[in-house]
Amino acid sequence: MRDAYHEELDSIGDGLVEMARLVGSAIGRATTAILDADLNLAENVIEGDKKVDELHHDLEGKAIALLARQQPVATDLRIVVTSLRMSADLERSGDLAQHVAKLARLRFPERAVPRDLHATILEMGQLAQRLMAKAAECVITKDVDLALQLEADDDAMDLLHRTLFQHLIDDRWKHGIETAVDVTLLGRYYERFADHAVAVAKRVVFLVTGEHADDLQQDLPPEIQA
Amino acid sequence: MRDAYHEELDSIGDGLVEMARLVGSAIGRATTAILDADLNLAENVIEGDKKVDELHHDLEGKAIALLARQQPVATDLRIVVTSLRMSADLERSGDLAQHVAKLARLRFPERAVPRDLHATILEMGQLAQRLMAKAAECVITKDVDLALQLEADDDAMDLLHRTLFQHLIDDRWKHGIETAVDVTLLGRYYERFADHAVAVAKRVVFLVTGEHADDLQQDLPPEIQA
Repeated sequence: MRDAYHEELDSIGDGLVEMARLVGSAIGRATTAILDADLNLAENVIEGDKKVDELHHDLEGKAIALLARQQPVATDLRIVVTSLRMSADLERSGDLAQHVAKLARLRFPERAVPRDLHATILEMGQLAQRLMAKAAECVITKDVDLALQLEADDDAMDLLHRTLFQHLIDDRWKHGIETAVDVTLLGRYYERFADHAVAVAKRVVFLVTGEHADDLQQDLPPEIQA
Repeated sequence: MRDAYHEELDSIGDGLVEMARLVGSAIGRATTAILDADLNLAENVIEGDKKVDELHHDLEGKAIALLARQQPVATDLRIVVTSLRMSADLERSGDLAQHVAKLARLRFPERAVPRDLHATILEMGQLAQRLMAKAAECVITKDVDLALQLEADDDAMDLLHRTLFQHLIDDRWKHGIETAVDVTLLGRYYERFADHAVAVAKRVVFLVTGEHADDLQQDLPPEIQA
């Protein structure tokens, strides 16, 4: 049987996995909301982010209480500090999913994304969701190989982002400036979401190996660095 | 005379102030670089961000070492954990200043910002720099009133951001899509920079009062919520 201390550590881990699950689902639903101009679904994502924020605050509270009461050292200290950072990444990912949903709401009953970009945005949304599912799996399994694999997946996101930009600056763009602004910001939201998922996975690498994977957030534009 | 422990705490505080000073200067220079299409200055900002990243890593190392060795509780624990978060905010602010500089470099020898938006971008850059200077002052003085004042200053940033968007979606916009994309992202960088400055100040409020100022990052678009 585990002692109270390790139960608390486990409960922090469970909180992270739950947050990742929620924000992964949120980005998936937000993507559907923006592609289908589904107002109810958008509202549902926006409302749902409160739960993510609550989990973030709970987790911070637990982590700080653990630091104060148990005064962990070495690996356990690393786990607690790293968990605080992961929680911040996940909370921010939730905000970004909420941004996508808010854009869907803002443009309703219009669709924010023109038909010819649906496939690209759908792919970005699905990839973002998969990246977050893998990040959650990394947190559960502490699988360093899987964590490192996320970087390759993130390259696919950069490629999608570049495709999006090429559409935008193509002379044949006929959707006007407002839509260009919306699509520019959307691209940024998905890319940042993916960056945070990768960051969570890389923090797992740090946890296990004690070594920082370099350059946690590549954060691409200007303007999708070639 | 202060003991070694409090000297370490002080040195973490000094690191934060130094980071705030560097990123405040960076956003000012990046703004000049993008308005004047000054490639040297842009390169200088891009290069200078390494120093910010170094300070961030040093500070994290010191904070974690302090947690492990000294096992602070109560207020001191709060200071260390809050410092870690401030450092993350400042590191991210540095990235955003670097993004502005990279956009200047990408468009060189052209200017990324059309003439009729110079005044607005200049104001955003100056305001971002002032917000960061105030955030640094909050860290030094622990002045809660000043920290709360930053929120009002941030409202001015939102207003500038809205002005920028109105220009973009005005039917008379004649600068094409690529420039619209650049200006959209620029607006986002300044706004996020300001959010992080406000976050640093609000963390000072938490440090002093023990209470979380709600909703640390307002993070405006879609599409500058009216």
